[in-house]
Amino acid sequence: MKFIIQKDYLVQSVQDVMKAVSSRTTIPILTGIKIVATEEGVTLTGSDSDISIESFIPNEEEGKEIVDIQKPGSVVLPARFFSEIVKKLPKDIVELDVQSHFLTIIRSGKAEFNLNGLDAEEYPHLPQIEENNMFRLPTDLLKNMIRQTVFAVSTSETRPILTGVNWKVDGKELTCIATDSHRLALRKATIETGNEATYNVVIPGKSLSEFSKILDDSHELVDIVITENQVLFKTKHLLFFSRLLDGNYPDTSRLIPADSKTDVILNVKEFLQSIDRASLLAREGRNNVVKLSTLDEGIVEISSNSPEIGKVIEEVQSQSISGEELKISFSAKYMLDALKALEGTDIKINFTGAMRPFVIRTLEDDSMLQLILPVRTY
Amino acid sequence: MKFIIQKDYLVQSVQDVMKAVSSRTTIPILTGIKIVATEEGVTLTGSDSDISIESFIPNEEEGKEIVDIQKPGSVVLPARFFSEIVKKLPKDIVELDVQSHFLTIIRSGKAEFNLNGLDAEEYPHLPQIEENNMFRLPTDLLKNMIRQTVFAVSTSETRPILTGVNWKVDGKELTCIATDSHRLALRKATIETGNEATYNVVIPGKSLSEFSKILDDSHELVDIVITENQVLFKTKHLLFFSRLLDGNYPDTSRLIPADSKTDVILNVKEFLQSIDRASLLAREGRNNVVKLSTLDEGIVEISSNSPEIGKVIEEVQSQSISGEELKISFSAKYMLDALKALEGTDIKINFTGAMRPFVIRTLEDDSMLQLILPVRTY
Repeated sequence: MKFIIQKDYLVQSVQDVMKAVSSRTTIPILTGIKIVATEEGVTLTGSDSDISIESFIPNEEEGKEIVDIQKPGSVVLPARFFSEIVKKLPKDIVELDVQSHFLTIIRSGKAEFNLNGLDAEEYPHLPQIEENNMFRLPTDLLKNMIRQTVFAVSTSETRPILTGVNWKVDGKELTCIATDSHRLALRKATIETGNEATYNVVIPGKSLSEFSKILDDSHELVDIVITENQVLFKTKHLLFFSRLLDGNYPDTSRLIPADSKTDVILNVKEFLQSIDRASLLAREGRNNVVKLSTLDEGIVEISSNSPEIGKVIEEVQSQSISGEELKISFSAKYMLDALKALEGTDIKINFTGAMRPFVIRTLEDDSMLQLILPVRTY
Repeated sequence: MKFIIQKDYLVQSVQDVMKAVSSRTTIPILTGIKIVATEEGVTLTGSDSDISIESFIPNEEEGKEIVDIQKPGSVVLPARFFSEIVKKLPKDIVELDVQSHFLTIIRSGKAEFNLNGLDAEEYPHLPQIEENNMFRLPTDLLKNMIRQTVFAVSTSETRPILTGVNWKVDGKELTCIATDSHRLALRKATIETGNEATYNVVIPGKSLSEFSKILDDSHELVDIVITENQVLFKTKHLLFFSRLLDGNYPDTSRLIPADSKTDVILNVKEFLQSIDRASLLAREGRNNVVKLSTLDEGIVEISSNSPEIGKVIEEVQSQSISGEELKISFSAKYMLDALKALEGTDIKINFTGAMRPFVIRTLEDDSMLQLILPVRTY
């Protein structure tokens, strides 16, 4: 294998596939990046066997030459060293030249690196996925859907299924749900699809987090293919594979209360900052709990108390409070996470009593909701 | 004690004194910040008993009112909570009001914090320093002198005196020296002084590092007072105290070779980047060693070898090589540290053989030098 390539394309591509490479792996060759040069361009692959990322650099793009393939071939190079080396090369042009025994010479300007490579034939094969059934979402919407749900997955392995996000497709609607059994995040969107397939799968939260780091904020469509045990996301030059979690996701629909006893409409920013201040002292106490009380004239009182350190009390002017009077306690962290996930300037919170889960929605948009279970303090 | 203060002044002042506050201390009250309000303004103090920082906020500055003292007094507030609280207060104006039992109310807008304070009488007294003998340096020069030497102090406690920087004042000249016995950094400067006092003291490296974080890049003069066991730095609104290290600093003057067998003149940036690339592989080997060889036509060859991973070789064009041919090995880390500390675009390296310390100076300036001991590899 021998080719000459524009450094910045190589750096970007290496950085993308590195998201899948783990230094802790039981399969030694997976600490490497697989590089394959064909007549069309160069393909890089990184994998930790749960996640695999494949990035393609075409020979030319928009009339600009990016790669000059002089001899097709393949090699696996140590990922950590290779990624640091390409970043620090002195010139804009890089030459890769694989010699006997997979010894690879990397040249740029007057710098010459020799890296001991491995046989790419030894590298595990990526899952073969039939692309008959697929649906599409714009990149920015997909990134938002991940951001607005993935924070709520469980970090505990006691119920492994809850460490993933439940993706359900029914007709033209995708619903993403995450819960750690103390709070729940739900987001819906309309997908582009040519068929009426239904899916109900669970994607590991870690896979979605890593994937969203690669996504930009463009409107370009991402192709999504779901199989029995894999999901594949396809962007312009990138394939992102993740295994799915085994098992059935709990039915969360009955958790969401349909009725409401107290409704509060608030400005997100003011409310969030007030919860943030209250959490400064709440963090010291057990569970990071803050208290919310409705007062007269649309005033919401936020308070928290840490006997050793002190206490904090603050009044927030709501836009409206209707229904029963309420005193309720909840985790400041869960509330902050939920408020940061919501879009828009105003939110509506529907409470159904001090001991029942409550639901936060944005005023303008019904496609997402955040649910939090209160904490018993009275 | 009761006063009203501009939030941004309070935030800055708290941030400055926090540099001296440690959460790991055997004296519990030192986890707090002492606040004293007098008719002139508010003084904040933080200390870990090695370093103490005092910051003064005057009632007004340039005709602008900063503090309105309503009742003089004092209190000690828990540093970590107080610093996080003031940063997150909702309005530009903050009220501090100490009530009975040192309970302190912090009000801003509609937020009200109650913090349990302590009696400021219990707070240790800062050293009393007589300011008869002092000298002066511009802030930016002082900051540079610290940066160019402090990285070379020893991090090992086997010879505690080497964890400090040796400050010697003789007439109008200040010399700062740091060494960990493998490399040495030296920087001289002319001071402003009204007397001819001589000093030879050792200031803990950690104190200097913390102090330089507070310094800006202005030309304003810093007053420096040295006593038997303390040094005091005075800026406009800040006092920075540090204890000195006990013991005699070794005489380093005889370490610096006076003669030279091979002289190389190089562009700093090119040389630094080439060492940086070589260190990518050297890091894996023992000691992070790179090799330098002089070739014909003013070419310097930088190389390193890590048998398991690979090797790197690079030619750097020097401006001139004079004297004997040379092959020498040294720590890439020490060389990178030294090159980053030097100013200017070109450097001169004076070698006196492969097994002897070598000296790096900037071409333009004789006030600083970096010395490195080579590593035996041949």
